[in-house]
Order: sequence, then C-alpha cells, then structure tokens
Amino acid sequence: MFVYAAGKSMANDAVYYSADGDLLIVPQEGDLDIRTEFGWLLVRQMEICVIPRGVKYQVHLVNGPARGYALELYQGHFNLPELGPIGSNGLANARDFQTPVACFSEDFGVTASEGPNTFVVTVKFNNSLFETKQAHTPFDVVAWQGNYYPYKYDLGRFNTIGTISFDHPDPSIFTVLSAPSPVPGTAVADFVIFPPRWLVGEDTFRPPWYHRNTMSEFMGLIRGGYDAKRGGAGGFVPGGASLHNVMSGHGPDAESNEGAREAELKPVKVGEGSCAFMFESCLMVGVTEWGLRTCQKVQEGYNEESWGGVRSHFKLPEDKKVISHLAQ
Amino acid sequence: MFVYAAGKSMANDAVYYSADGDLLIVPQEGDLDIRTEFGWLLVRQMEICVIPRGVKYQVHLVNGPARGYALELYQGHFNLPELGPIGSNGLANARDFQTPVACFSEDFGVTASEGPNTFVVTVKFNNSLFETKQAHTPFDVVAWQGNYYPYKYDLGRFNTIGTISFDHPDPSIFTVLSAPSPVPGTAVADFVIFPPRWLVGEDTFRPPWYHRNTMSEFMGLIRGGYDAKRGGAGGFVPGGASLHNVMSGHGPDAESNEGAREAELKPVKVGEGSCAFMFESCLMVGVTEWGLRTCQKVQEGYNEESWGGVRSHFKLPEDKKVISHLAQ
Amino acid sequence: MFVYAAGKSMANDAVYYSADGDLLIVPQEGDLDIRTEFGWLLVRQMEICVIPRGVKYQVHLVNGPARGYALELYQGHFNLPELGPIGSNGLANARDFQTPVACFSEDFGVTASEGPNTFVVTVKFNNSLFETKQAHTPFDVVAWQGNYYPYKYDLGRFNTIGTISFDHPDPSIFTVLSAPSPVPGTAVADFVIFPPRWLVGEDTFRPPWYHRNTMSEFMGLIRGGYDAKRGGAGGFVPGGASLHNVMSGHGPDAESNEGAREAELKPVKVGEGSCAFMFESCLMVGVTEWGLRTCQKVQEGYNEESWGGVRSHFKLPEDKKVISHLAQ
Amino acid sequence: MFVYAAGKSMANDAVYYSADGDLLIVPQEGDLDIRTEFGWLLVRQMEICVIPRGVKYQVHLVNGPARGYALELYQGHFNLPELGPIGSNGLANARDFQTPVACFSEDFGVTASEGPNTFVVTVKFNNSLFETKQAHTPFDVVAWQGNYYPYKYDLGRFNTIGTISFDHPDPSIFTVLSAPSPVPGTAVADFVIFPPRWLVGEDTFRPPWYHRNTMSEFMGLIRGGYDAKRGGAGGFVPGGASLHNVMSGHGPDAESNEGAREAELKPVKVGEGSCAFMFESCLMVGVTEWGLRTCQKVQEGYNEESWGGVRSHFKLPEDKKVISHLAQ
Amino acid sequence: MFVYAAGKSMANDAVYYSADGDLLIVPQEGDLDIRTEFGWLLVRQMEICVIPRGVKYQVHLVNGPARGYALELYQGHFNLPELGPIGSNGLANARDFQTPVACFSEDFGVTASEGPNTFVVTVKFNNSLFETKQAHTPFDVVAWQGNYYPYKYDLGRFNTIGTISFDHPDPSIFTVLSAPSPVPGTAVADFVIFPPRWLVGEDTFRPPWYHRNTMSEFMGLIRGGYDAKRGGAGGFVPGGASLHNVMSGHGPDAESNEGAREAELKPVKVGEGSCAFMFESCLMVGVTEWGLRTCQKVQEGYNEESWGGVRSHFKLPEDKKVISHLAQ
Amino acid sequence: MFVYAAGKSMANDAVYYSADGDLLIVPQEGDLDIRTEFGWLLVRQMEICVIPRGVKYQVHLVNGPARGYALELYQGHFNLPELGPIGSNGLANARDFQTPVACFSEDFGVTASEGPNTFVVTVKFNNSLFETKQAHTPFDVVAWQGNYYPYKYDLGRFNTIGTISFDHPDPSIFTVLSAPSPVPGTAVADFVIFPPRWLVGEDTFRPPWYHRNTMSEFMGLIRGGYDAKRGGAGGFVPGGASLHNVMSGHGPDAESNEGAREAELKPVKVGEGSCAFMFESCLMVGVTEWGLRTCQKVQEGYNEESWGGVRSHFKLPEDKKVISHLAQ
Repeated sequence: MFVYAAGKSMANDAVYYSADGDLLIVPQEGDLDIRTEFGWLLVRQMEICVIPRGVKYQVHLVNGPARGYALELYQGHFNLPELGPIGSNGLANARDFQTPVACFSEDFGVTASEGPNTFVVTVKFNNSLFETKQAHTPFDVVAWQGNYYPYKYDLGRFNTIGTISFDHPDPSIFTVLSAPSPVPGTAVADFVIFPPRWLVGEDTFRPPWYHRNTMSEFMGLIRGGYDAKRGGAGGFVPGGASLHNVMSGHGPDAESNEGAREAELKPVKVGEGSCAFMFESCLMVGVTEWGLRTCQKVQEGYNEESWGGVRSHFKLPEDKKVISHLAQ
Repeated sequence: MFVYAAGKSMANDAVYYSADGDLLIVPQEGDLDIRTEFGWLLVRQMEICVIPRGVKYQVHLVNGPARGYALELYQGHFNLPELGPIGSNGLANARDFQTPVACFSEDFGVTASEGPNTFVVTVKFNNSLFETKQAHTPFDVVAWQGNYYPYKYDLGRFNTIGTISFDHPDPSIFTVLSAPSPVPGTAVADFVIFPPRWLVGEDTFRPPWYHRNTMSEFMGLIRGGYDAKRGGAGGFVPGGASLHNVMSGHGPDAESNEGAREAELKPVKVGEGSCAFMFESCLMVGVTEWGLRTCQKVQEGYNEESWGGVRSHFKLPEDKKVISHLAQ
Repeated sequence: MFVYAAGKSMANDAVYYSADGDLLIVPQEGDLDIRTEFGWLLVRQMEICVIPRGVKYQVHLVNGPARGYALELYQGHFNLPELGPIGSNGLANARDFQTPVACFSEDFGVTASEGPNTFVVTVKFNNSLFETKQAHTPFDVVAWQGNYYPYKYDLGRFNTIGTISFDHPDPSIFTVLSAPSPVPGTAVADFVIFPPRWLVGEDTFRPPWYHRNTMSEFMGLIRGGYDAKRGGAGGFVPGGASLHNVMSGHGPDAESNEGAREAELKPVKVGEGSCAFMFESCLMVGVTEWGLRTCQKVQEGYNEESWGGVRSHFKLPEDKKVISHLAQ
Repeated sequence: MFVYAAGKSMANDAVYYSADGDLLIVPQEGDLDIRTEFGWLLVRQMEICVIPRGVKYQVHLVNGPARGYALELYQGHFNLPELGPIGSNGLANARDFQTPVACFSEDFGVTASEGPNTFVVTVKFNNSLFETKQAHTPFDVVAWQGNYYPYKYDLGRFNTIGTISFDHPDPSIFTVLSAPSPVPGTAVADFVIFPPRWLVGEDTFRPPWYHRNTMSEFMGLIRGGYDAKRGGAGGFVPGGASLHNVMSGHGPDAESNEGAREAELKPVKVGEGSCAFMFESCLMVGVTEWGLRTCQKVQEGYNEESWGGVRSHFKLPEDKKVISHLAQ
Repeated sequence: MFVYAAGKSMANDAVYYSADGDLLIVPQEGDLDIRTEFGWLLVRQMEICVIPRGVKYQVHLVNGPARGYALELYQGHFNLPELGPIGSNGLANARDFQTPVACFSEDFGVTASEGPNTFVVTVKFNNSLFETKQAHTPFDVVAWQGNYYPYKYDLGRFNTIGTISFDHPDPSIFTVLSAPSPVPGTAVADFVIFPPRWLVGEDTFRPPWYHRNTMSEFMGLIRGGYDAKRGGAGGFVPGGASLHNVMSGHGPDAESNEGAREAELKPVKVGEGSCAFMFESCLMVGVTEWGLRTCQKVQEGYNEESWGGVRSHFKLPEDKKVISHLAQ
Repeated sequence: MFVYAAGKSMANDAVYYSADGDLLIVPQEGDLDIRTEFGWLLVRQMEICVIPRGVKYQVHLVNGPARGYALELYQGHFNLPELGPIGSNGLANARDFQTPVACFSEDFGVTASEGPNTFVVTVKFNNSLFETKQAHTPFDVVAWQGNYYPYKYDLGRFNTIGTISFDHPDPSIFTVLSAPSPVPGTAVADFVIFPPRWLVGEDTFRPPWYHRNTMSEFMGLIRGGYDAKRGGAGGFVPGGASLHNVMSGHGPDAESNEGAREAELKPVKVGEGSCAFMFESCLMVGVTEWGLRTCQKVQEGYNEESWGGVRSHFKLPEDKKVISHLAQ
C-alpha cells in the first residue's frame, strides 16, 4: 500500500513496469493520463485504475500535481465479487469497466523532435528497481485482443446495496474489487468504498459498529468527510489515511457514537460529495520507518482522542452483585 | 406446490408422514399446532415451518379453519443462501430458526381416556397414500439430538437488503431459503418473500421490472396487498396465487406502470401490514385439472387485464425511417 | 436390483452386453466363469465382480446351478469411497481388485468344431432386449490397456473398521463401493457388507440401531446368518432378501433387542462364516409384480413378526403427568 | 435433435420461442436471416447460431429453401470447453462469436402497410405448441446489455488442434461448444466438428478408430465428404445423418480400413471443402416413428454394408493352440 | 508449539490477546479458569480449549501451578474433520464442544476494591508483545451471539474408531481437530490423541508401525504412558515431548517391537488412565535455542536408545545370492 | 533448480535423501543408475526421473561423468495435467511411467567384502545438509506397495499435440508434468519439453512468439538445437541454460524472426535429434552468486545479441500523423 505524490509527468522516453504485481491506483488529487502499451487511460479523481503486472506505462499529469493511494497486489488478480443473493447485477457492474484502445507510436516517441532514440525502462522486480535501455518505443502496439489489460472504473457507477429494513451489514457489501486468497472466504486484498447512500435502518445504531477484524483495514479519503470520523485537526481529511491492523478494535468516535444513539431514525442520505475507501487484506500490514516516524504525520493520541470519551451504557441492577469465580 | 385448507384437527391417533420430501408450510389463515416426533411446533400466520421427509406429525388447529400454501421438496433440503458480499449476517439469520423440544407421550396418546390403543399412520410414498396401524404412539420420544429436525421461522425477523442508491436488484435478494439443484446457480426451489421495506432508489423505475424467468414463479399473498398487482375483483388477494411458468413474461400491470413512471422518488416505506411470497423452481410447473378448471377460480382474462393497457413510450424520430433487411 | 438364478452356461456363440449400465454381480451359490472381451474372470462365492456398460461377455457355470444378486447402475460408476480420517488404507483397498488378462480367440469360437460361424449378441438397451448376429467372435482381443474394464474383488480382503471405544457408527463404515450421485453426500448406489468383525463397544447397545433412512436399503445374505434378524421359517436365510424402502423404519427384532439389552459387553467376534450385504440407493425402489406377488415368497407378516413384540422401556414418573397443548 | 427443412420465410407478424431450451442451429443449405428481440442474425452455411430459451424470433429465408440440423438443449447452456493444457487460445475462441445489435421496430411491423395490428406468438412449452396474440411487435427493443443473448459462430474460424507426432486423440479435441451435465466429465450435449486439417501422425492408423461410446453420436454432413464413410448410394451425403447410440460400436468401413493400413504416412491435408459435425450426448437418443420408418430414408443394411467386409489381421501362431477354460 | 508453565494467576487488571492466531491449549497439570470476553471457561486436565485470534482473556490457576502444551495457529481455524465413510457421528462430535456464557463485569474489575481503574492489555502481534492501557475492563460483555468464540472439549468424549478385523489404520483416525491448509489433503495443524481403546487386530503387528511422515509430529503425554515408548529415565513421561520432524523415520523401540512380534493377539484394552497426543503439521518445525540446548532436557542418545537394538528379521535364502547391478 | 555434474558414483555405504521436496532429474550427459529403497532405476539421456521427498537413494554412474539439470519441488507433487478436450489419452500417458522393483540387500551392502558395517546418511533438511550413521543398509526392502515411489519416464514416448490448422498454441501444450499451486491455473513448477514434431500451421508465424510470462522460464537443452535460438559462440548449446524471469519479454532472435517471415509454409518436421525443455514456475527465480558471476558462463550481451537486430515492420501511413494527448 502506497501514498503517492508527483509534481511532474514522466519523460516521453521513460517507461516503467512492475514484475511484482498488479497496481491499483486511487487518485485523490490531480488526474493521471496513463500511456500504456494497450493505449491511453485518463484516470480522474473518483475513478480508479488497475495496471497489470508486466505492463509498461508512462504517467502524465493533466492538471498539476497529483496525489493518491495505490496498492500493489503480489498474488492473484482483482475480480468482481461473486454476488450471491444480490443476483445478476449490483455493486460494480462488469459493463462499467473501461479499457484503452491501441495507440500506435513509431520509434521516436510522441514528438519527433525529442532527439536521441533511447528509451529507459525502469523495472520493479522483487521490490528492487532495475533499469534497461532500448532503441525503440514500447508503445508501438498496432492492435490488441485478449483478457489481460489495464482498465479503469468510475466509482460513481457503483450500485450501492444495504439494509432497507434494520441492522447494518458488513462493509463487504461495499466491495468494488476483490483479490481472493487460496483460503476460501479470505482475500489478499479487497477494495471497498463508502459511497453516497441512503440510511433507512429502523431500530438500528446506524454508524459502522465497533469491531475487531481478522483483516487489516487501511482507510483513505478521496474527498469530503467520513461519517464515523471527525475531520479537522488530528482528524481524517482527504489525502489522509488510517490503519487498523489485524485484530485492532475500532469504531465510531465518542461524539459520533452519542450522536447516533440520540438520532431520529428517518431516511437520511449520507456521504454526498464524499468518498472514503478501504484497502483490506488478510495479511498483517507492516509500516515503513518513513510512515511511522520520518513523515511526522502520525496522530499520536489517536486512540485516546477517538475513543477516550466513549461511555458504557450498561449497569448492573442495583440489587444484583457479581458472584465471582475468583477468591475474594 | 399446494394450497391447503382444513376445517378440523387430525385425530389424536392419526399420524402422517411423507417419504417423498420435506414439506415447507406457509400458513395464511389459522395457526397450526404441529405435534412432531421431536415435540410441538406452534406455527402462526407470518411464520413458516419445514417438516423433513420421514418425520411423523399430527396437525392441530388452534383458532378455527386454516388455509395456506405448501411446497414439497423432492430433492435435497432447504439451506440459507450463501450470502456472498452481504457478509456474515443478513436476510434470514440462522439464530432465528426455532426447533421443538422433545415431548414424551405414553402408549395411550395425550389423554389416557382415549380408549382403543391403535394408531393409524398415513404415509405418502411415491405420491400415493398408504396406511398402516401400530399399537403405540410414535410421539414417545424422550430426548433427541442431531441435525435433521422440524423447524419454524418468523418472517418478521427477515433482515431485508436492497438498493440504497439506484436500480433494482433481482428478487433473489429476498431469498429466505433455497434448495439448490446439482447445477450450480439453479435451485429446485427457492422461498422468497416481499416484506415491508424502504424504497429509496434514485433515477429508478421502482416496481419489479418486466421480465421472463428461467425459473417458474408461483406467488402467494399471506396478508395485505402487493405493490405491482391490483387487488379487488379478479385481482391478487390474500389466499390467492399467481403462476408465471418458465419463460412467461410478466411485470407490473398498466396502472402500476404509469404510476411508477410519474412518481416522485423520495424514500417510501412499502409493504407494511402485507406479505407476498414466491416459490421459485428451475422446473416447469404442471397444474392439476382441479387447479386449471374444476375450482373455477382462474382469472381467464389475466393477460389482457394485467398488461393490455401497457403503453410503449419509445418512438422513432420523425425524420428517421427503418431500412429493413426484408424486401419491401 | 436383481435376484438371478441359472441352470446352465451360455452357449459359446452367445454374447451379451448392457448398453444401460454397469452390472455389479454378487454370487450367492455357484461360481461364475465370465468370459469378457478383456479375458476371463472366475468369480466365486464371497467374491463380487463389476462388468462395465457396453462390455460383451458370456457366463459359464463352474460347479452347477448358480444363484445370486445383481445391481445395474444407470448413472456413473462405482468408486472406492474417499476414506477421510481413515487415512491412506482401509476398507476395500485398491490393490485387491483384480482384472482379466487378454485371451485371444479366433473366428470360430473356442473349439473349431462348433460349425456355423455365427455369433448371437443380445443387447440390453433402454431396458429392452435386442439381438444381432455377427460372423466373428467378439472375444478376439489380443491385448488391452486403459481404465475401463471388468474387475473382481474378494470380500474376505475387506479391512473392517468400527468403534473401539463405545457407540455404533453408521453402516457407511462398511462401504465397499459407492456410485455417487451429483448431489454431494448421496449415492445412486452403495455396496455395503457386514463381514466378520469384533464388537467391543462399551456402554453401548450393540446391534444395528432402529432407524429410518433417506436411502433405500436392499439387503441380501450370501451365507451364514445376520446378527439382527432371525433365520428359520419366514426369516432371513442365504439367498433371501429384505427391502426397507426410503424412510421405512426398521431395526433389530424383539428377541435380538432384549438379548442385546441384557448382554455382558465383553469383546465378541460376530459374523464368522457369514456375510450379509446391502445395496443402498438414494432412489425409491419399485418392486416388480413378480417380486411382490407372483413368486409367493413375501413374508406377509414381516412387520408384526419382527417388531410386534418390541417393548418400550420408558415410563413417565408416577408423580408426573403430561400437561397437553390440546384441549381436554 | 432435429433435421429441419423450410420453403418460405415466417410471416412478419409471426413470432416463435421455446420455453424448453436453447436451440443450436446448423444450416446445411439456405442461409437464415433471423430477427430476434436482440436484433438480426444472418446465419449462412458453415456458420452456426444459438437462440437461448425464451428469446422470441422470426426466421427469414435469404436464398431459397433451407435445410439443416438443430439441437434443443433441455438443461444448462453451451460453453466453450475448458482448454486445459491447450492454454489460453485454441479451438473456438471467444472473440469469434458474434451477437446482434438492437434493431427497434414500432408497433406495425417492419413495413407499415401490413395492416391489422396483430402478432401471433407460438410457444413451445413442455414439448407442446401454444399460441397467443398481442397488439404490438416483440421486436421493439431499443438497446440491450447483459449476458444472455443469441449468437453465431463461423466454423471456418475453428483453430483445429491434433497430433503432430503419432497416435489419434479423442474427437473431444474438435469440440466447439459443450453443455456439461452435473456429472463431471459428461455432457448433456457437445457440438463437435471435423474441419479441414493436416494429418501428420507417424506409425499411426489415421482414420477415426473403432470404438463404442458412452455418449450417443449423431453425425451430420454440411458439405463435402467424410474421411471414414463412403458417400454415394446408401452412403453419407450432405444433409444426411448417422446415429450411433450409446455403446453401439462403429468405425471406418472396410474399404477405408484397408486403405489406411496400406497408406504412406506423409503429411496430408484432409477435409478441404467439407465439414462433418457431431451432436454428442450422454443421454440415450430415441428416434421418432417418422425417422425410423415413415421417411423411408434409413439405410437398412448399414451394419453389413459398412463393416461386413472388415477382416481380422491377427492369427494364432501355427504352433500354438488355445487351452480353454471350458470343458472340451 | 509451546510448552507452558505458570506459578500464579494473571492479575485482575491484566489482559492478553494474540493478533497472530488461534491458541489451542492442552493442560497437562493444573486446571485453568479462563476469563474471556465471552465468559468463563474452566479447563481441566484431559480437556482442551481454543481461544480464537483477537479474543481477550485472563488466565486463573485453580489448583496450584499449571503446566501444559499449546499450539498457535497462524493460518485458518480448527474444524472437525469431514468423517467420510465414518458417517454422521464419530470421533469428536460437535455436540460435545462447550462455549462460555456471557459474564458482565463493570469498570472496576471483579472486586471493587482493586483501586486504580487501569487495565493493561498485552498483545502478541507479529510474534512481538505490545502493551496498552485502558480505563475500563474488556470483560463488560452483556450478551453475545455469533460463530467465533472460545470453546472447550473433554477428551474423554472422543469416540475412538479403529480396526475391528486386521491391520492398523493411519493415526489420522484419531484426529480431534484439523486446520486444513489450502493444499487439499494437508493440514497446517492437526490435533490427534491416543485415547484408551481396544486392540483386536488379527494377524497384525499392533503397535504404531515404522514410518516417515510428510507431516512433522510433535508428541506430548498428558498422563499415564504410551504403548510404543518406554517411560523412565530418558523416556517418555507426562509433561515430556518428542519431535519427529518432516521425513524423520520413527516407530516402536526395540523392546516394544520384539514384544509385539511375540504377543498373543487376543482383545486387549490399551491406554487406560493415559493420554498421549500429537500436534501434526505439514510445515517443518524449527526448535528454539532454549529447547535444543538451554533447557538441558534433550535425550541426546534418543536415536540409538530407541532403535539401536531393533533387529532385522529378513534373510536371503542360503542358496540365493544377489546379482548386483554394480561392478564386483 | 540445479545444474549438476558428477565425476564418480556415490560409495556403497553412502545414502542421501531430501526432507525438503521431490527431486526431478533431467540427465543431459551420462546415464544414472539410482539405487532407491524401492529398487533400482536406470535413467538414461532422454529419460527423466522423480525421487520423492524422504526417499533414500544412492547414485551410480554408468558410462562416465554425468551432467544434467534438476528441480526440487518444495510444495506438492508432480501430476499429469488434466487433459481437458485432448480427451483420455495424449501428452505423457500414465502407462509409460516406470517404477522400480524391490531389491533386497542384507546388512553389509551389495558385496559382502566391503567391511565396516557403517552407512552414512546425508539429509537435506531446510536447505542444510545433516549427516547420521547407521549399522544397517537402508536398501533392505523385501517388497513394497503404495502410491508414493520413485519413477522414470522416457521423453520419446511423449505424444505431442499441436495446431493442425493455423496459429500457435501456448507451450503449456507440451507439459509433461505439473505441480499445481493452490491458486487454480498456476503451477509451482511445470516440466515442459520441445520434442520432435510436425509444423503445419498455415498463415502463421511458426516460431514461439514474443511474449512476457507471469511464470519464470528456465530452459535447458538435452541434445541437438532449439528452433528459436542460435547455437554456437554465446548461443544455446546442450548443457547450457537460459532464464527468463517473471515478466521478462523474449522470443525468437532477429535471424530466426526474419527467416520465419519469409519461409514457405509447407509441412516441416522440426526438432529431430534434439530436445529442449523448460522448468516453469509461478515463483520468481533467484540466481546464486555462483550462477551470476563465479562461473563466468553468463552471456553478458544476451539481450542485444538476441534481439538487437529485430526490426519493426509497422509504419504509419505517409498521409497520417499522430495527434497526441500530450502538449506539443
């Protein structure tokens, strides 16, 4: 899992690919125009794309500096989840994924004036970078067919499903893409979003409930706010991220909690103009030295600031006392 | 698939079982107190029960005449559907199914005064009825354990899931129980309900859409009305039923159609005080002579009365004409 | 399922095959020397054989009249059951199945003196018999390889597994061969034997328990007696058979029951010199007119004679009474 | 399985669909222009098409009378076979299947002059034909998306795979489409072709070998000849058909046999300008009274004429004799 | 795999959980009273328990110092093995597993006098220990439902199955719990016991045979002795352990071997008052420095002392000699 | 993956086994006579053998120094690939694999004169070598049965399948043995050969096409040449090897490319007297320091020498120009 930032486009004779895995890119600021061997993909905020392992590409910035999130998948590929009782349509529909059209370039790159005929290919192989040169552009594909290609998806086309009676389904119901592990029921990586949606649950505590997860949860925010986390100082803002590693308990902060307990349960549209997302993995997630310390962006008091004020609402009845197993 | 009606309880020395299959009972009027070898099950309107193949029982009426629907399953057993992205909870939850407690009776039936010590067991085997007698009650079970037993379920506990954005999922999203066939993705029988629920789909034609189905759809109404079918004379009333056999097209009637086209799409709670249901099967459904003719209950003009008035809303632009493949 | 009897060998120019299914043969009296296209199989009492669908053969009697049982399998083939926790060996082991060796014959049959060069092939196709003639023997196979062939198995090599602590496993633990249906966990046909074995279960009612089965049970006796059924007049004798169709309850007769309740539970070797077997099927079993009536061999009082005398051993305590759900 | 013949197009207000199954059509003479709800499919000789269950259509003749073969599939759907070691391409490739484009028609049919606004829909349901009328055309589809649609395939695009060393693979290697049964390894129906191809097998008897099949084989000829069957009087000609039902042995006729034994084994291109095909099924195939007798087209001496002259080439060595199991 | 020993209970404000995996605990001496978020589990000698990953608990000693074995499972969860032909009951039965009942505690722990309101939670995450503090007890659960919970099992309820004819099944037949790996047929960890049982195998070498295993075998002894290993000095005593890593050959020691060769093969009850067990894994097992050297408990002469005296009983016949492939 | 070389046989009292995995051996020069616990395997050039994990053996040279390739498989075992549409025979056939016959040796080794009775067993465990001694030979096996044994296979028996129409299947069509990973469709290791075969593809570029592979490809040459790589200085010669790691593009060299473009496409037999092979793995392949540098055998200019001269044959039409996405 990466947070990326870029201030300028790659050169026209610079090419990159990863031999390690597929890359899922979630732009948060700054659109990306990605030139791949299969053609161009323009990926804007609120869209995502996947570049498969081994596919060469070159990234161009469209409207200034770019920032976003990415996940590299070292095993398998992303699939649409099997929908089960949801039936033949729902969540992300196959017809909404878009692929590039072949775009042939001759040897000297996009503009003939670029001069010396040398392309530099940078390869990520086993988490190291290697470099090689070649005398012709890799973007000389005339046409292609097959089932291994880059694609993009507009998150606004996600058909959000949820409770229309009571209770609160698992966030798996917001899965866009899933890369299953060989152990049935677990995933190397899931990509999940929290899109605009109606909340109509009756007799229900509506925010995401408190839980510990056997999956690691890395959460980011593309734009707007997230309904169970305060923004502002030390809070959760676009471009920020939270990590709840395997079995770390979490849930709404104290303020969201008390608010939800008191709320009138009429239909409410939440999340408009906003989009949080989650990378989930059955693997434990290590954090780099940079992420933990160098960047100096970690909210040190996260635990206390989020849940320090959460109150218990259960009490032993006055006339009962606990008879302990333990010696008094 | 059966529609049943009963005016009195079975005798205390009468016992029945089917060697052909599991029986799913959907009471529509009149509660049933079912004495099984495993104990008693009180099944009320808005509850359903399943009596497995080979289990002996005796049905008692609780509050007068009873009427309802039933489906006998000749292959396999009912399961909860795999939930897929819905996650670990949702639709019918396993914890809400209830089983009987063993209830021991001695040889002479429930009250010792009943006299001659003879029990009559009626067996349905290969769709014929056979009768045998025995000198002791079959309801002499002292205790039981295992995983093959009768059970009941309160339909009010169904956790209804649906769209909370736009569009209209398949009715499979309302599946309570499913008996899969050996062909993956098809079912010998599904039991589906249309419970009270919120409709919040935006930019959406909200009633069940027009479709043909590779499954046969037998629909009944336990109480109230159904949002895509008129009640009243010739209409769809509690205790009634419709059958849309394999590949018979159907959908909302003309009036519901035009109403939905014009409706303001704000959150609406539908189906309160009502419960329609569906028996679906991948098999073609034959209809008995009694059902087709003898009963004189068939709505002969069903097709015309339902959809005769449906209007097309597409028009060729004035300045276009069709260039046909066919000779003019 | 068949009971067969034969008084003489097939002629040297007579050949038979079934286009309908594989035939499992269980000789009870009289050994069979079966000439197949793949070579000869000598099948003796306490051995079984399987002739696959479409394989031509000719049966010769070795030591006088022959009688036995057979089952024709209309779907799939017999496998050894997956052993699960039993591990890599146990029950019937693959290495004990024996196949014929190719045995070439020239055109004129086994002895050249037999004269007119005409072989009569009788075919069972869709449960009818057809006949064709050909000018050469079908037993002219010089060599063969492949995995579709007749085989035989000596039941004495069955490695019987059972409880060595308490309780009584399902008879599935005695499965020799199983032809699974496409519905996991059910079988079109199982072949099960009750071989000599040690009973050591402590605190256990040792005979086969009372039960109803979702499978039909056809039982035969190759030799000796069976520990839960009396022999003698009207009883269960070698060459005889019982049928407990789907969901027909059965179990030890009254005498065996009371005996087992009183027995001292020390190690006992049962079944020596005896072998009962069972054809089990998830299908209901129809009985021919001949079997039900013409043969005049049915034990009419089977139910009463077997279980009429079985006594209940449970009593309501003197100071308790049943409070019925039912109106008094 | 059907052999069809048609002398004129269906009327513009006549529509047909089958509620029983998908129809695979193999034109042999006369192209078909098929108007479906999804748009038009022009299906020519050497192309095939599949119309799914429940889809309405109307067939127009393009160039005079039409004749051909068809198979209606009562369970499941046709798939491309899993290719196994053949890899990611080969046999029929997914990219070569073609689907119709939506073609909107208004109420009065293709030409406005056709008058009374009444469409007659003929339905095949449970092997009976039913008829209904409706006031508007079913061909009023403006656009469609989904994965259930009619399609066609040009048999010339089949990438034929075979031995390039020695021996002769199973005809399954020529499978175009397969509709698997729930029993793994068997198919309700396979569609197999014998296209033009190179034979290069060394040390090999090159024609299809002699065999019996657990599948029924219905064979037809679209054009040209077939390399293991004579044409001419009583032979195998375009528009004709052969049926080798379950476990009926067959193979090259005597003449083809002797020819192949003597042939020099250099590379040979066979089947140019020709295309035989096979419908295979794990089910036994019944033949109609018309097919067996009324049509008077059956080659009565088929067996003798095909294989009467086949000679055995094995001999017992002069100095050996068979020692029989049988008494002399 | 751990050997644990404890001299006192955890403090009332100390809590532990592992984010790494489920923990299987096998007490050997000293009962454990385990307070979990789900309630209390009293686990005595001859019982085992499993605490799932992420569940918080606190261990109390009941009757003095405690010692035992444990296995932490880093992938998947323990299941009951699929029984295969053993049928619907046998080995460990689901009904014998016991779960805790919710036990609510208020903020200040079990006794209000404990003072400062601070709970210390120790977490094992990625094989390191982390510590955090919180102001309220984690044992404040009022009620729970679900399918992820701690449980215990009484080994005395294991229904032992084995040979009742001849031969010796694989130890897999004694599997209590199995955590399958994604490779079918292998397990990340199996828990297997050697409970009291009858040996009745005829014509059989009855001790566990000599073998090498593709699984690592870690063996412990809860009480009593083990029939293929001497106790006493340098032997196998309660609380001790042996490890036969992947592909290390082992089997009965010389004395047990010769004893078994000479033994009279009548029914014998073995293992009464004793219980050995095995942790098996498809993974190679590393041993800590402490285990190999620091503890000074390793039996250095294990190999020679166990099998040095085993004699071969095969001899080449006097009149035969080996003709070697190798040059003389 | 190993390249091995040996100048003399192992001593008669030296034994080796690997506890890490199965070893696939591909002799390139010098036949091996391998004495295993199961008996002797004589493995010659153009044969391969597999020694399973844990099986002890001793290697003897037959005709002087030996050299070859080997692959040790750390997960799973080699299987024949599922053939899919290829049917019931093809590629490597099960009947052509050969196993050893038990060969009993007494304590003192093959010749009694060898003296001190001490056998040295070297074990590879977790990639380290350990050594132990024992007083008797491990080759004292009298007889064996089971399904875990060493075997060999003659590559000349491979039934090569390929295109007999046009196009070029994936090299998976040449798979001899495959060790599947738990991720369907990928393999821990495949063993693939390029045997003599006929090329008859019409309208086809016949050499192996240019590609990148998600599998690592290690290629070796047993004898002769390979049709897409030059031999000679710096080229691909018997005993040599190439490695195209995950996602490294490769294909025919410039000369082979231009040759194939111009070739007349008549039937051609390629590869006679030659045999290249490939070890493929879904894992990235690390190279040892010895392999990369110490051996001084790496063709440093491989990339340029192979593909430097490959020319592009596509050109933009004179009258077209690229309109770039990029700013000019």
